[in-house]
Amino acid sequence: MADAGCIFCRMVAGEVPVTGIWENESVLAFLDIAPISTGHTLVIPKRHFARLHECPADVLAEMASRAAAIGAAVKVSLGFDGYNVFCNNGRAAGQIVDHVHFHVVGRREGDKVFTRWRSGNYAEDEAGLVAEKIKKTLLTG
Amino acid sequence: MADAGCIFCRMVAGEVPVTGIWENESVLAFLDIAPISTGHTLVIPKRHFARLHECPADVLAEMASRAAAIGAAVKVSLGFDGYNVFCNNGRAAGQIVDHVHFHVVGRREGDKVFTRWRSGNYAEDEAGLVAEKIKKTLLTG
Repeated sequence: MADAGCIFCRMVAGEVPVTGIWENESVLAFLDIAPISTGHTLVIPKRHFARLHECPADVLAEMASRAAAIGAAVKVSLGFDGYNVFCNNGRAAGQIVDHVHFHVVGRREGDKVFTRWRSGNYAEDEAGLVAEKIKKTLLTG
Repeated sequence: MADAGCIFCRMVAGEVPVTGIWENESVLAFLDIAPISTGHTLVIPKRHFARLHECPADVLAEMASRAAAIGAAVKVSLGFDGYNVFCNNGRAAGQIVDHVHFHVVGRREGDKVFTRWRSGNYAEDEAGLVAEKIKKTLLTG
């Protein structure tokens, strides 16, 4: 189940210390040691899954519930104005540790932690064609 | 239940058209009209909740499952290398529409869609004190 080379699996096993925030039988939440903002918390499944779409539904449910509750707690307890919850999947998306994790990051007005992304738009009829591709793959896997 | 002034509630009600990706009784997924990358999808609860921590557990579970499945489908169907799933809560965190939503964004190596964040570190003993504050609020609300 655990991946011997995975730092997060070693944290779950108690072999690498963490500053814990919360845990139950399926999920562990702990402070990121290189915080984007104070209280930056990682929410991970105790079982090893590399990517979000590899997690079973019960694990996803528990991770989402915990990330939401911790987001609210980080905001209130540390005086933030809001919070981000995000999950990077794959190197191209910024994932560094291949054990899936939600980041929970407290935010303040004007903190410039993340710059606003550039957004584009679709040419006429393009959106429908894109949607068809995604939907076909959703159905057939 | 629905908020008459909310654009996403109007989409759920069919009053504003969307390019749909998926839906069931509790969740709707559709293409963002101002995509960060092609196939950028929003996953929203059909009931109106402003922030992630206001959603009941069953809604969070459904949103997380759908975001994960759509992340995989966007990646595979459109030839991305990875994907981000994220949820901004509050203006300070970049939330524009006050109806909670997960963004699902396909990513390619070197696309520079999001710049890597600056991360800091904790002074000695600071992490423990921060964790205590969060944990106390998690328990007491």
